[in-house]
Amino acid sequence: MPTIVAVDIGGTQMRAASYTSEKLKPIKQKKIATLASEPGGLERLTQVIEEVWPTGDKVEAIGLGSPGPLDPHTGYLLAPPNNPEWHNFPLAPNVSKHFGVNAYLDNDANLAGLAEYRFGAGKGHHNILYITVSTGIGAGVIIEDRLLQGYHGLAAELGHIIIDINGPPCSCGFNGHLESFSSGPAIVRYVLGELKSGVGSSLKREGVITARDVAEAAHQGDALAIKAYQRAGEYLGIGVASLLHAFDPSIVIFGGGVSQVGSLLFDTFHASLKKHVFHPRYLEGLVITKAELGDDAGLLGARALAEMKLQK
Amino acid sequence: MPTIVAVDIGGTQMRAASYTSEKLKPIKQKKIATLASEPGGLERLTQVIEEVWPTGDKVEAIGLGSPGPLDPHTGYLLAPPNNPEWHNFPLAPNVSKHFGVNAYLDNDANLAGLAEYRFGAGKGHHNILYITVSTGIGAGVIIEDRLLQGYHGLAAELGHIIIDINGPPCSCGFNGHLESFSSGPAIVRYVLGELKSGVGSSLKREGVITARDVAEAAHQGDALAIKAYQRAGEYLGIGVASLLHAFDPSIVIFGGGVSQVGSLLFDTFHASLKKHVFHPRYLEGLVITKAELGDDAGLLGARALAEMKLQK
Repeated sequence: MPTIVAVDIGGTQMRAASYTSEKLKPIKQKKIATLASEPGGLERLTQVIEEVWPTGDKVEAIGLGSPGPLDPHTGYLLAPPNNPEWHNFPLAPNVSKHFGVNAYLDNDANLAGLAEYRFGAGKGHHNILYITVSTGIGAGVIIEDRLLQGYHGLAAELGHIIIDINGPPCSCGFNGHLESFSSGPAIVRYVLGELKSGVGSSLKREGVITARDVAEAAHQGDALAIKAYQRAGEYLGIGVASLLHAFDPSIVIFGGGVSQVGSLLFDTFHASLKKHVFHPRYLEGLVITKAELGDDAGLLGARALAEMKLQK
Repeated sequence: MPTIVAVDIGGTQMRAASYTSEKLKPIKQKKIATLASEPGGLERLTQVIEEVWPTGDKVEAIGLGSPGPLDPHTGYLLAPPNNPEWHNFPLAPNVSKHFGVNAYLDNDANLAGLAEYRFGAGKGHHNILYITVSTGIGAGVIIEDRLLQGYHGLAAELGHIIIDINGPPCSCGFNGHLESFSSGPAIVRYVLGELKSGVGSSLKREGVITARDVAEAAHQGDALAIKAYQRAGEYLGIGVASLLHAFDPSIVIFGGGVSQVGSLLFDTFHASLKKHVFHPRYLEGLVITKAELGDDAGLLGARALAEMKLQK
């Protein structure tokens, strides 16, 4: 069992951990504020890594997870949000040089998918579609036990598959992506549009409405809020049907905050998936389930990435 | 170099060939009518294989290509068109038993993609998207030098990705698939709809119009015919943009009759692809090209499948 240091670089926190055994529990774990918009990010990163560095064992690889876009083949961050210092920044090469150990980088959604494959809901499966439904929609794909990365390292951006070319704008500026129908902000935008058209609801246009507010209103029986999640579920079913035609996995795993609402989203999702899959065989034996690793997915994915690279 | 027998089972002909060297040219080659709707298909198949069987060398594997749907993991045909005798039929197991040699089966589009990867336009690439635009739209995907097959063997059915959920019906009965916009029949259907609405054209509603007729009219300057191909190209660009987000290949290879029309289809395709890719990095260094192997893609793909299985 190799000794690994893993870091999950999130929007608010960098979490680091070291692993020396098969166990999911790290031997040391630490977190530090990311402070993306302030200088000194690399120093904060190396500091938190030093704090979890194992005393006895030789570290064989460092795994790093970060929001994209990034290049996993070179370890460069391309354009992380709110972080001008790290635009086109050689993150993994810098970390590798500092510690004298190979360092590997991939995006948070890919790594969460890899973590679920290795340690979570996907254990025992060889072809996995992991989808996180949250502020955005991200994904990680395992094909025959290998993480799909792509030529530029930009594969599996499955929130940005086009399901209705005439659909609403996505956060990325393009229209009709899966994310523009089924992400948290898409649910809120639908509610706001309906309120503007005069649809009655316990939700008010004044103040900021979040996807969580909509979920709470739905649980209280608000018809518009219920419809907003049902619509998101229906489009999620359309998107996943299209993705089954492309990848034909044996399991679909859902992570992310929006997916926590359960049947509010998934009743229409299941009906829509069944309706839009063009051959029933795709659904034979297909497991559809929730992610198991929660907040640890990022760290465990960064660890799994490092282990994967050591095995190559 | 292993000795391989390959068969390409087409709608009208079964072609068989045997290979004993690195050369693309077989040592023996033969064809026989498929006669899908008549009994005795397996006998015709074994007969044409016997006719190309090498005299001196020991055959190490047999590769078989056929239209889908089929299960490459078990070698069963599921529901080949116009062939009730071969519904749910153990084709590869029967061939294997008859000749005492392992036999492997996959669908024609996957195998054409595999052939282009091994012997054609995709040589030297590791991540390949092959798309055949013809009566249907089929695909073959290579990811890190491996053929994408999927859990049920139904991956890469990329003619059936959904690009406009409110779009026209596809040959499969579902709506808004890539195939329902950009295949030959989709081009014809668009022309017929426009003629019905009173749009003027040199194409007439009487008699049967084919995609080839539309191409000829376009080359003569017919505005409707030109528009029909331009529209198909625009939607093809939308579909391929979505597929770049999913697979991020280094090369996109086009085969199939409809793709032979050249700039009539591909001018709008290129513009649309550029317009709909959500990050310009997908296009950096991306090669977009024509298939090289023509009618031999099926045979060479069946050969490559057998070779691939021998290496596993």
